[in-house]
Amino acid sequence: MALTISHRCLNIAPSLTLQIDSRAKEMKASGLNVIGFGAGEPDFPTPPHICEAAKEALDLGMTRYTPVPGTMELRMAITRKMERDHGLTYSPQEILVSNGAKHSLFTIFQTILDPGDEVLIPTPCWVSYPELVRMAGGVPVFIPTNEENRFIPSNRDIASKVSRRTKAIIITSPSNPNGSVWTREQLEYVGNLAVTHPFYIVSDEIYEKLLYDGRQHLSIAQLGEQIKAQTFIVNGVSKAYAMTGWRIGYCAAPRQEIAAMSAFQSQATSNANSIAQHAAAVALDGDQTCVEEMRQQFEIRRNVMVERINGIEGISCLKPEGAFYVMMNIRKLIGRTYHGRVLEDSMDFAEMLLAEKHVAVVPGIAFEAEGFCRLSYAISTDKINEGLDRVAAFIDELK
Amino acid sequence: MALTISHRCLNIAPSLTLQIDSRAKEMKASGLNVIGFGAGEPDFPTPPHICEAAKEALDLGMTRYTPVPGTMELRMAITRKMERDHGLTYSPQEILVSNGAKHSLFTIFQTILDPGDEVLIPTPCWVSYPELVRMAGGVPVFIPTNEENRFIPSNRDIASKVSRRTKAIIITSPSNPNGSVWTREQLEYVGNLAVTHPFYIVSDEIYEKLLYDGRQHLSIAQLGEQIKAQTFIVNGVSKAYAMTGWRIGYCAAPRQEIAAMSAFQSQATSNANSIAQHAAAVALDGDQTCVEEMRQQFEIRRNVMVERINGIEGISCLKPEGAFYVMMNIRKLIGRTYHGRVLEDSMDFAEMLLAEKHVAVVPGIAFEAEGFCRLSYAISTDKINEGLDRVAAFIDELK
Repeated sequence: MALTISHRCLNIAPSLTLQIDSRAKEMKASGLNVIGFGAGEPDFPTPPHICEAAKEALDLGMTRYTPVPGTMELRMAITRKMERDHGLTYSPQEILVSNGAKHSLFTIFQTILDPGDEVLIPTPCWVSYPELVRMAGGVPVFIPTNEENRFIPSNRDIASKVSRRTKAIIITSPSNPNGSVWTREQLEYVGNLAVTHPFYIVSDEIYEKLLYDGRQHLSIAQLGEQIKAQTFIVNGVSKAYAMTGWRIGYCAAPRQEIAAMSAFQSQATSNANSIAQHAAAVALDGDQTCVEEMRQQFEIRRNVMVERINGIEGISCLKPEGAFYVMMNIRKLIGRTYHGRVLEDSMDFAEMLLAEKHVAVVPGIAFEAEGFCRLSYAISTDKINEGLDRVAAFIDELK
Repeated sequence: MALTISHRCLNIAPSLTLQIDSRAKEMKASGLNVIGFGAGEPDFPTPPHICEAAKEALDLGMTRYTPVPGTMELRMAITRKMERDHGLTYSPQEILVSNGAKHSLFTIFQTILDPGDEVLIPTPCWVSYPELVRMAGGVPVFIPTNEENRFIPSNRDIASKVSRRTKAIIITSPSNPNGSVWTREQLEYVGNLAVTHPFYIVSDEIYEKLLYDGRQHLSIAQLGEQIKAQTFIVNGVSKAYAMTGWRIGYCAAPRQEIAAMSAFQSQATSNANSIAQHAAAVALDGDQTCVEEMRQQFEIRRNVMVERINGIEGISCLKPEGAFYVMMNIRKLIGRTYHGRVLEDSMDFAEMLLAEKHVAVVPGIAFEAEGFCRLSYAISTDKINEGLDRVAAFIDELK
């Protein structure tokens, strides 16, 4: 038969974030001074004591296959973390370690979705969610939100999207791309709805350590045993410990679901990197000062970025409560022209800003959020100021 | 709707190799002296210069996201290896780095298979092949072989299994589990058949460095440009450099197929571990003495194991040409009894041998090869002798 790519793969949407990102990288490589607001990772190095742990793993010969769901050392460290941070009790048989939190999400949807099953996704949402659902044959059902409700769907909006095919809802708090944090009441509503219906809850908590103005993280699984019994908590060490390249994510869920995920992973990829598993265990069990130091830096940068954006005529943003992204509202600029070219949408804005002012932002359309652009503040305050000076200059030149 | 596991996951066969393996581990943990012939990995530590490279990566701060298909450093090292070892020219855009060779295979089948597409698999085969095909909706079509043809299918047997739904064939040379190596003529037949039909060739070359009696590896992609244009070469650093826990595998294939695989991987897992990628580049580019030293050890062990097995009445084996496994023929023992219990198949043999003599082997049924058990010689000569002493004692007690 013909040598063709599968329909599954033909249907994967090319990542808009990566497109802008690779153009920005090409411009940088050619010597241009590009300010990149596209970063999805902390700009800090991995803390030294975690790197030392990796060296220790090498010296101890931890270079062999580990159990597919992760070493007992790391799974125990994760159970201690869940207990310490959230008062949640999990056994090691309820933990699966994967090659990053994205991989955990991939395996969750492969494990729970049959063709046609629906997954509720509040938007703006992380770019990969709809694709991860589609790759498992599922149907993403978007729940649009806006700035007026701080990007969190109302109870009524959520209920209106539930159908008999609803298999799960994705909760991301704090959120990429908008930095919003769900309140206890909002989580309780979703939790109870999920129990009544029933459907699964996929709670992406990768940004839990990056909360501002004194906020504390609340996991939806803390809201009751039955809610916990339907929840997949997804987390990892990437954002909290500046370990993005290490690829260690994990999922906590009931034993039966973890067993099914583990069987899938045993055939698809096996265990995550053995050296990184030891380093991740040390990160979770060790001194957490590094986490707080990085968090404080992000809070300072957030404050600078929000104040600068809201000081520029034509754009605005909410003050994010967590993560390291701002959703910049550019609706007032739509329809204006730059040297004769009409700015029609967020993609135009991102492309023109990059071409003219060498500033990279991610168009909101990538997150199902037209009329916005996402700016990451995982870069220095100096660069934030320089970049927003250029944004202001660009807007000044619009007619 | 009900909180159920997907049909995709319910259909994943539990790994028989892992079942025996975990029982053997429990017995070891309880203090018993278990001899394990089940190992699928070298028992050597990762060579020191490769561990040093990982430490260097840590010191250089290589802890961030890398490009999804792998760092340019590693992809260039892979292209140099392909040129040096096989005279095969690939560009970095024709290479995808994954979390181990199994992950490369997973992504290949997700990328080329639509539901109902058939994949030809000569048996005995590696346990994961049928599951990897099924997980992508494909249908494994087995081509049975036997000792008489040294576990390599005849041209006629291959041709008889080709249908209009044939999308690919898997070639594993040297083979896990039987250690056979395909001749140039055998590869040429498959290559030409694939071009005529056409269908893809998935060439699993993970054991290429473990060849004995002076043999040299031949990749099917070396047999012509059109064959190369339809071939996915799968390889990795696990077996050649004793780096199983590091999870670095790779695929070399035409640009369009690699682009599709990369898009899939970008949504499913992103990049492989950044530190391991640097170490793998150093492994491929560096001094290859360590590879030859380990190979020589495996050759010595193979000779011991084959001689011992063929010296025991009731069992026998071919002399493998590569990899580190022996397929031990136990057909003459089927139907005999051990203290009244009838030995009915390879699973019985493996279970009884483990329970009675504390020796772990993998039943042939796991590889679609009833009447055999797989023994790995990735353990010391002393343990090989001790283990086969126990096998001989077990057989002596059969009635």
